[in-house]
Amino acid sequence: MSAARFVIVAPRVITCDPARTRPGDPLGVVEDGAVLVEDGVIRAVGARAELLGSEAGGVRVHAVEGVVTPGLVDAHTHAPWMGSRDAEYAVRLAGGDYEAIAAAGGGIVSTMRAVRASSVEALSATLVERLRRMATLGVTTVEAKSGYGLDEASERRQLEAVAEAGRDASLPRLVPTYLALHAVPPEAHGDRSAYARQVAERWLPAIAAAGLCRYVDAYVDRSAFSVEDTRPLLARARDLGLGVRLHAGQFADVGAAELAAEFGAASADHLEQVGPAGIEALAARGVAAALLPLASFTLRQAPPPVDALRAAGVPLVVASDANPGTAPTESLPLAMAFAARLYGLTVAEVLLGATREAARTLGLEASVGVLRPGLQADLVAWDLPHENALIQPWGCPRTRMVLRGGALLSGRFDASPPAG
Amino acid sequence: MSAARFVIVAPRVITCDPARTRPGDPLGVVEDGAVLVEDGVIRAVGARAELLGSEAGGVRVHAVEGVVTPGLVDAHTHAPWMGSRDAEYAVRLAGGDYEAIAAAGGGIVSTMRAVRASSVEALSATLVERLRRMATLGVTTVEAKSGYGLDEASERRQLEAVAEAGRDASLPRLVPTYLALHAVPPEAHGDRSAYARQVAERWLPAIAAAGLCRYVDAYVDRSAFSVEDTRPLLARARDLGLGVRLHAGQFADVGAAELAAEFGAASADHLEQVGPAGIEALAARGVAAALLPLASFTLRQAPPPVDALRAAGVPLVVASDANPGTAPTESLPLAMAFAARLYGLTVAEVLLGATREAARTLGLEASVGVLRPGLQADLVAWDLPHENALIQPWGCPRTRMVLRGGALLSGRFDASPPAG
Ligand SMILES: [Zn+2]
Ligand SMILES: [Zn+2]
Repeated sequence: MSAARFVIVAPRVITCDPARTRPGDPLGVVEDGAVLVEDGVIRAVGARAELLGSEAGGVRVHAVEGVVTPGLVDAHTHAPWMGSRDAEYAVRLAGGDYEAIAAAGGGIVSTMRAVRASSVEALSATLVERLRRMATLGVTTVEAKSGYGLDEASERRQLEAVAEAGRDASLPRLVPTYLALHAVPPEAHGDRSAYARQVAERWLPAIAAAGLCRYVDAYVDRSAFSVEDTRPLLARARDLGLGVRLHAGQFADVGAAELAAEFGAASADHLEQVGPAGIEALAARGVAAALLPLASFTLRQAPPPVDALRAAGVPLVVASDANPGTAPTESLPLAMAFAARLYGLTVAEVLLGATREAARTLGLEASVGVLRPGLQADLVAWDLPHENALIQPWGCPRTRMVLRGGALLSGRFDASPPAG
Repeated sequence: MSAARFVIVAPRVITCDPARTRPGDPLGVVEDGAVLVEDGVIRAVGARAELLGSEAGGVRVHAVEGVVTPGLVDAHTHAPWMGSRDAEYAVRLAGGDYEAIAAAGGGIVSTMRAVRASSVEALSATLVERLRRMATLGVTTVEAKSGYGLDEASERRQLEAVAEAGRDASLPRLVPTYLALHAVPPEAHGDRSAYARQVAERWLPAIAAAGLCRYVDAYVDRSAFSVEDTRPLLARARDLGLGVRLHAGQFADVGAAELAAEFGAASADHLEQVGPAGIEALAARGVAAALLPLASFTLRQAPPPVDALRAAGVPLVVASDANPGTAPTESLPLAMAFAARLYGLTVAEVLLGATREAARTLGLEASVGVLRPGLQADLVAWDLPHENALIQPWGCPRTRMVLRGGALLSGRFDASPPAG
């Protein structure tokens, strides 16, 4: 299907390229635009007439009718999960608290049991189905965390499943993150710091040696790990050359944002609860805020302090937090719709937060998240006429063509023009 | 694909059959259940062992792994729309009011222009694409309103497009509703009652004579049509043997619920603003309340008085309100997730409100909305293990097999069991 060299032309190409953005055009839009792709890489982006005029002819042209954007980048997912937490979800909506949820067999430990009982093959097969659905939604890069194994072997199997899926170029790109500090497993008998030390000193070095993760994450919160529990892990991660991202301030401001800044984390995620000191620390170190509105929707929480984050110049990322408990979704577009409606992000903030800024937090700014020559041809042709339409809560795929490295992940080339 | 006679077996069959419901089981669940289908009609529903045991053998068995429900019924949509109102949506989210939206070219009049410029063929083609996406989401019956033509010919073209799509058995069933009283067209120069009289006296009888609608709807609200404007239309509808459903109390309680009751409407829809008198009137006449949480989400409105409606015994329906302005969505499942999370409906209320109760308001209780012998084999096999999971906000299709009258609308027979 994918010719080695072709041009996509579209009435509206959203480049997200900082070199193209101007006051009033934060997305670097090219109207009546074109993208030249060769061997999976973007070779040129520009006005259609100009770009096609400079071609010697014979290049295949795919005309699409809708808006074209970079492939979406979901920078926070717990995608390698197993089982269902629907009972917990129903209890939560009926007003049940944590005890009720635990009584209904819910919580991370419930998913932990399902993951511990699963082989790498089973984990990978379920992950692949999920990734295919994500691809239909326009997602071409997915950060995927472990964190449901909570023992050395099971955490590793989760990352091995991610590695296996990551070898399949017909799926979204995967960025693996080690999140053994997601919860304290039952066998630790509540000794958080001992569990955290074990992860830092023994488990992580082996995972790193196997090349199974690029980032280390930890759930730093009131009811999870403290800053002191977590610091040794992050120090070890730094020594091993791994990046850091943190679950920070979902329920309480325990200094997680400051910790993220201390280690120059790629992102601090959630931030429903973060004070001025935390925001200032993030801004000073250029740590992005990854906003997860599907989780706060489920938990009926107030939004994070978006105005203060914006005012401080903290880069904003929007992610799905795909997980079976608090964000049982596979849709980054739905998170984008919620970020606009529930968090008050602008359309440009939402779009950049799910493309360029998300890619930046994954260390992929030189390869995806922007339509610019030299980058991978990860792009989406939408069955929608304008980027504004992308933040409407469609609830179903609105893509016509999803490319990763110039090859189809979903949809088809030469999508027929939408009727009317 | 569809054999004349086959059995679906599933670990959990949600019948929604009143004959099966019991205290503690409002959904009439059959565990390890089976549905026998013959010539598109349900012939038997029951325990797998029993049902298969009574078969002489040779019947084809399709085993599915997830939960099986009746096909979803979306009882309130404006599906035959054209164009995009994305600019308006973005303005609204940025806090813009009606004037700002009108200045951005938004509002019903913007869609009216797109519809007036469209042929029946174009309207139908766009509607068909939308219906196909709805089918992937498990929707097998769709109520579809006119209301964007606002002149006699354009309103009629919308309904002709619905009729055309309605002849295609590979799409969801369609129930057409005439909503010429959706807004006052520009050429009426603000004379609402004259416009309403014209619709009642001239347009409706012709539409009825052509058999193009089964229901008549009107938007009765502060900024739309008054009770007095509307009454002649409803009287005429009654004389013509058509059913009535109303947009009632979206912004203000102007007595629309009482009007719905006065005419024995099938449903009163929205009801964000309805007082005790309106609720009592609905209950007394058995008029259902169709709840539209996607619209109130977009408009950042408080929920309707669900507790009072429930306490009064008003049947609850959940619908998408699919429309380009306030509910730009094609997903009834998303509306269901919102009804649970934002309106506090129970899982059973949500499920019944999108199947049996919705079908009842469309006069289809003898054919769809319930899995019971004698009814059409409209059913969905979900890629989810339990009905609780259906109200999680997946944001993408989670169906494996969607049948209308025993034939595939989406997915496939013999869906492979989900991995893990
Ligand atoms: Zn998370
Ligand atoms: Zn409506």
